Formats: sequence, structure tokens, C-alpha cells
Amino acid sequence: MSRVDVKVPKGTRDLHPSQMRVRKKVFGIVSEIFELHGAECIETPVFELKSTLTNKYGEDSKLIYDLEDQGGELLSLRYDLTVPFARYIALNRALTMRRYQIARVYRRDQPAMNRGRFREFYQCDFDIAGEHPLMVADAEVLSVLCAQLNALSSVSTYHEQLLRPYRIKINHRELLDAIFKLCGVEEGMIRTISSSIDKLDKEPWEHVRKEMVDVKGLDSEIADKVGEYTRISGPPAEMLSRLRQDAPLTALAEGALSQLALLFEYLQALEVDQSLFVLDLSLARGLDYYTGVIFEVVLVSSTSQVGSIAAGGRYDNLVGMFSSKEVPCVGCSLGIERILDIFEEAEKNLATSKAGGVVRTTATQVLVTS
Amino acid sequence: MSRVDVKVPKGTRDLHPSQMRVRKKVFGIVSEIFELHGAECIETPVFELKSTLTNKYGEDSKLIYDLEDQGGELLSLRYDLTVPFARYIALNRALTMRRYQIARVYRRDQPAMNRGRFREFYQCDFDIAGEHPLMVADAEVLSVLCAQLNALSSVSTYHEQLLRPYRIKINHRELLDAIFKLCGVEEGMIRTISSSIDKLDKEPWEHVRKEMVDVKGLDSEIADKVGEYTRISGPPAEMLSRLRQDAPLTALAEGALSQLALLFEYLQALEVDQSLFVLDLSLARGLDYYTGVIFEVVLVSSTSQVGSIAAGGRYDNLVGMFSSKEVPCVGCSLGIERILDIFEEAEKNLATSKAGGVVRTTATQVLVTS
Repeated sequence: MSRVDVKVPKGTRDLHPSQMRVRKKVFGIVSEIFELHGAECIETPVFELKSTLTNKYGEDSKLIYDLEDQGGELLSLRYDLTVPFARYIALNRALTMRRYQIARVYRRDQPAMNRGRFREFYQCDFDIAGEHPLMVADAEVLSVLCAQLNALSSVSTYHEQLLRPYRIKINHRELLDAIFKLCGVEEGMIRTISSSIDKLDKEPWEHVRKEMVDVKGLDSEIADKVGEYTRISGPPAEMLSRLRQDAPLTALAEGALSQLALLFEYLQALEVDQSLFVLDLSLARGLDYYTGVIFEVVLVSSTSQVGSIAAGGRYDNLVGMFSSKEVPCVGCSLGIERILDIFEEAEKNLATSKAGGVVRTTATQVLVTS
Repeated sequence: MSRVDVKVPKGTRDLHPSQMRVRKKVFGIVSEIFELHGAECIETPVFELKSTLTNKYGEDSKLIYDLEDQGGELLSLRYDLTVPFARYIALNRALTMRRYQIARVYRRDQPAMNRGRFREFYQCDFDIAGEHPLMVADAEVLSVLCAQLNALSSVSTYHEQLLRPYRIKINHRELLDAIFKLCGVEEGMIRTISSSIDKLDKEPWEHVRKEMVDVKGLDSEIADKVGEYTRISGPPAEMLSRLRQDAPLTALAEGALSQLALLFEYLQALEVDQSLFVLDLSLARGLDYYTGVIFEVVLVSSTSQVGSIAAGGRYDNLVGMFSSKEVPCVGCSLGIERILDIFEEAEKNLATSKAGGVVRTTATQVLVTS
């Protein structure tokens, strides 16, 4: 038999015993905190019907892995854990649930494995489904996310330096839509212009503007107006007071602005550190399904911004796409791979320094002799 | 937006909080025992290059899920955890390793979900790679498997009744090949005739004979001779002594018979209950990669045989298909789904009887109020 090419698929990797050890520890901490906050664990299939994933991810849909048509249903690997959760709620006719799920998702993205960007990677999701008083569930999701990040930061003093400081960028889909409307962006172009704006954390304004005008055909004056609004960010209280001075915007986005104000009141009541938050009008989140508050957590090092480690938001219409009963939802997804990479590196250094170079990879207590 | 068909793919299912609770407990027990026996945990990607899985599974290859060619590599979902492990050993140039892996595998089989037969299901694998004195690793794999099953049986007195008794069928690929040769089966037909013989635990001799003669074109006299040999089974010591009286067979299968005798000596030394074992000459295991001892564990109820819950064997040439360095391996795979189904059912009954019908599904201790 001829020898085949021995490698793993592009953008994937084997996880070795030393890595699994760190993962088990981290997943244990994460699960425990979710459960202490009343979340129940579920597991959904690694693939869904292709139709379940269709029209949920906007421009990112091109990254979905499809399975070959082998004479059965048309299937796709899950792209995230949010759409499967909405499908779960609809299928099981649940009207209320707090669930967490720790599982791998699949994206045919350009991998950058040295920066923790894979095609197969773990996410830890926490979501609250069901009717609740305005902003109560949203505030709770954010407070659980902070509890999560704080717990992970405190695993050891060694880790503490590694996960801090982090910052939570907040925006609201309705506020963003109001800005687009005010600037003159046509209804049908809002989602694609959103996707461009969302790149402002990685690309300079000139690139984003060029994409909007040259590629997407946005009028250049409209683009400039959009740029003026979306390039501002700052502490939530200051930002909200500043935006309230903009009468035309306030008229269009009264609901969103009140919701954000209420959210920060609740977060204060929940004793979540307010200085972690930034209201950032460039945060758009590319996915189609968000309807209300959206957020993203970034690690901030002294020299550079390391990148996003968590994200989420409210999605009130997704369950309704699968069911006659609308169930409002809000949730967050912890992109645990980057955190794990940081931990693995730290563990390795710690083990090497402690054991004089010898890393112990198992918890062996008894060896069967034979 | 039109509402899509809301269901999970055929042969898959959502796992609910109550099921996840049982799974976490069982996987915890399984992991702990593997680790106490010196095994290290790894994780491999859910898909492999299609070429990695080619020519490993015999007639079962048709059950492999392929991913659509979306302009990258040709990929397939893993069919088991054994071939990915051999690929892991080759890729990481390991010469010796004891590994365990608990993960889901994928088979486009006809699902029978009421009998625990899914298209996506968990396996718990334990394998020993590397050179060892004859039969030492084989005996250890079997003793760990028994330790595993005994531990799972002893989770509670309630469960004890459910997993016992089990029986371990043993055979040897070289012994089976010798039988085929002795009966006059041509070299090129051995694997396909093996697959037919392997069905003798589920189908009557007449069906199997018909398949061999009518479908596969085996001479009917040869088929009858094969039938005479492969329909015998019994306690290993008795069977070995009986087979040794067959001089032509002993001449052809001297190595296999000595290995089996040595294996049972080691199992006795390891204090594994000998009465669990049956030497069953119809056991063939369809997969192409086995080379030596093969085995299968079945649950035996007082009224009927419930089916296979574990299987494995020696595969000395598989790593060599991925590497210039041959690394002999032996391992077992615990088909944990059927055991989990039995446990879930028992937990449900237990919880209902204890709580008067109220099942507690989470470990909630603190509820955040907001």
C-alpha cells in the first residue's frame, strides 16, 4: 500500500497530553462557574441540517463547512453554538432556559495558528432564553462573563498577569442602525456596511472607507458621515450623555440609548467593575442574528491589543426562525482557545522552572505491571 | 424569512442536561481509570484528510462521511479513534505511548436510535503503542477493559445489575486466516468472507452461507467447511486443547495458538476473571487493520444478548501506513453509548423514585439575582 501524506487538515491540530491537562482544568473552572449561575449543560450534534445555518451569519456564511451530498440530508458543520442553541430551544419547545455548552466549532477561515486562529476551535457559550424584564438577562450575561474571566485570571498569580487587563466593548444594534439611517445608508446596505465598520478595530479608517465606497458602492459623503459617528468610543456614562445631545440621533435611537443606560445601572447594582466597559460605536458584529446589545471582550497588553477573547449579544428573532413561538435570547461566547494558549505557555514555563526542565504529563498513581 | 424544517440530522440527537450529568459522571470514572493505568489523554481533529482514512475499514468504508470539496483539502469525518491515533503516532514520531481518548465518531449507518445505534456517538479508546514482549500489552489492554467495565458496574448497586454479566469473545486474525486457508478460501477473498462470518452473532448460519455462496461466489463445499470451523466457541483452555488436536490447523496457526495460550496465562497472572472469556472462531471484526488478537465484549441478559459494548485488537501495520517506522499497537474501544443509555434509564428511575417524580437537573448552589 502506498504511503499517504501524513498530516492533519489545514487549520487543525492534535492536542497533546500536556495541553489536555490544562484544558481539563480550565473547562472544569468554566463549567463550575456556569453551574453556580444556574446554567445547565447540553450538547448538540457537530453538524446541523444545512438549512438550519442558512441566513444566519451574513458575509461569514462562506466560511461554513458543508458535508458532501452522499444521498441523504444536506449537512453543515456548526459555525457557532448560538444557532444550534436557538434550534434546540425551538425543537424542544423550551420557553425559558439558561444553558452552557463547551464544544468545538468549524470555520473555513484563513488560519493563523501562531496567533491562536484555527479552523476547528473550542467555544464556551452561556445563554439565557426567555422573557425577562428589560436588560435584566443582558446584565446577567455580562456579569457571568466577568465572573468567568475573573475566575480564570485568578487560577494562579502567574495567570493573573496574563489575562489582565481586559476591556469590554459595548454597542447596540438599534443604535448602530439609527446612525446608519441618520447618515443616509439605505436599508438594504446596512448589514454589509456594518461588516466593514466592524473592521475598524483591526484596519485604519482609510481602508474601511475604501471598502465601503469602492467595493460596496456607498456614496463617499455618506461614508464620511458614518466614519464620524463610528470612530468615537469612551466610558459609557460620558458617551451616553454625549449622544443624548444629538437630538436627531436620540429621536431615532431613544429605545437603544435608554436600554444601554439601564444596562449600566444593573451592572453597577451587580457590582461589576464599570471601568471595564467602553461604549464603542464601531463595534458591529458581523452576524445577522443580533438585534439588541452587542459586546466584545479584548485583552489589552501594555504594548498592543491582543485581540478578542469573548463576544455576544441579544438575538430576539433567531428562535422564531425555527418555531412559531418567538423566544428572546441573550448570550455570550468565550473564545477559550486564546486563553488556553496563554495558559499552556504559562504552565509550560512554570513546569519547566519548577521541575528543572522535566514536565510531568499525567496523573499516574498506579502502573499495572505485567 | 421562510421558516426552515426544525430537526436534527438523521441518526443524531441533542443531549439534554439530565443526560449530560450522567455522561460527565461516567466520563469522569472512565478517565480516572485510564489515568491510573498510565494512559495520557489526547484529542485529534473531528475530521482527517480523506486519504488518511482510505483503505482502513474494509467494507465499512462506505459509511464514512465526506466533506464537500470547497476548494481545499479533501476531508472526512473520523470513523473511529484508532486510525487517527495511528496517524498521531506517526506524525508525532512517538515510538511508545499509552493514550486514551473520549470523543464522538461518525458513521452513515442505518440508525436504530431506540437500540442505541446512532450516526454520531461517543467512543472511549485506550491503546498501547510500542514494542513490548509478546502478549504483554494485549493482556494489559484486556485487563484495563475489565477494570473499566467492573468500575462502571460498581457505580451503584443499582447499576451492578445492569452491566452484568458481560462476556468477552476472543479470536486471532492469524488463526482465522489459517482456517480460511485450510478450508480452501483464496487469499484475495479472505477479508470479504471474514465480514460475512462476523455476522454469525446476529444472523443464522443459513443467511451467512447464502451471502458467501450466492453474493460473494464462494464454492459451497468451501463455505460448509468454513462453517464447521467458525461455528464453534467455548472456554479458551478447552478450545485451545481441542484445536491443538487438529494437526493441519496447528501447523498453519502455531503462532496464533501459542499467543492465545500465553495471553490467557498473563490474564490469569493479572487476576482477570477467566470465566468472562470465550474463544469464538466466528469473531472476525470487519476492519482491515487488525493483525493479531481481536475481541468483542457483549452484554448478556438472562433472556437475550443485548449486543456489543466494547471491541478491539492488535494492529501492527497501521502506523507503518503513515510512517517509515512500524510501531506495533493494541487497543480497545468502549462503545459507551449503550452503557450510558442503560445508566440514564437507571438514573431516571432512581431520581423519580427518590424525589417522588421531581428530577433535579443542575448542581446550582447560588443564583445571581438581578
